[in-house]
Amino acid sequence: MSDSARETGTQLDVKFDDKGLVPAIVQDIASGTILMVGWMNEAALKQTLATKKATFYSRSRNKMWVKGEESGHIQEVVEARVDCDQDVVLLRCKSHGPCCHVGYQSCFYRAVQGDGSAGQLALVEKPVFDPKKVYKK
Amino acid sequence: MSDSARETGTQLDVKFDDKGLVPAIVQDIASGTILMVGWMNEAALKQTLATKKATFYSRSRNKMWVKGEESGHIQEVVEARVDCDQDVVLLRCKSHGPCCHVGYQSCFYRAVQGDGSAGQLALVEKPVFDPKKVYKK
Repeated sequence: MSDSARETGTQLDVKFDDKGLVPAIVQDIASGTILMVGWMNEAALKQTLATKKATFYSRSRNKMWVKGEESGHIQEVVEARVDCDQDVVLLRCKSHGPCCHVGYQSCFYRAVQGDGSAGQLALVEKPVFDPKKVYKK
Repeated sequence: MSDSARETGTQLDVKFDDKGLVPAIVQDIASGTILMVGWMNEAALKQTLATKKATFYSRSRNKMWVKGEESGHIQEVVEARVDCDQDVVLLRCKSHGPCCHVGYQSCFYRAVQGDGSAGQLALVEKPVFDPKKVYKK
């Protein structure tokens, strides 16, 4: 498919990278909060769309995983979007529990301070659960 | 830095990939809308944080570019966040004009239909400008 057709057409034609992966953003559809970014291979994308449960491909463990498979905190996909050049997926989800394995609602719980030159982050969200109690392994 | 320190500490230590890049999400801070995803190298991240104008590294043109340098539709960075493992950047921005070069407010203007098996996308946003008039080149 040409870049132009991919950008303006109505055919789904996701452009996976040289490792066969595409980044997928999870957004809480109710609040608009960006919860996490995971990576998907083609199988994870298909499974996500078919099951409506956000499913990713772990680059470190080299296997597919369903978000919430251990914690129960699944992300139920209400709407899946692609960006103009179809190399990013956006999952607009109903959250069934907090998203970040460190204990926060969102993985984006820290903000860069000032102009970044001091290399400091500030916590801008509050933890909402104790990971030790949720992840038993 | 250990993975654990990177995940829970307050030191900025962005994990660039094997090409020296990290994905950066642009979110409209007023509406919560996800506008685009671009890629940053270390220099683009530093320039973004210093100038407060979202700046990326183009993988196709192999150079840095400032969002809006041609259209005037800059993204003014109000807050920059990182995710837990510091391999994604989130720019919460005040938008100075629409974001997508195809003519939409957001690059995510199409949604996957049904379970995706028919490979069809639906337009879920309306165009807000004529790219031919904004991009002269």
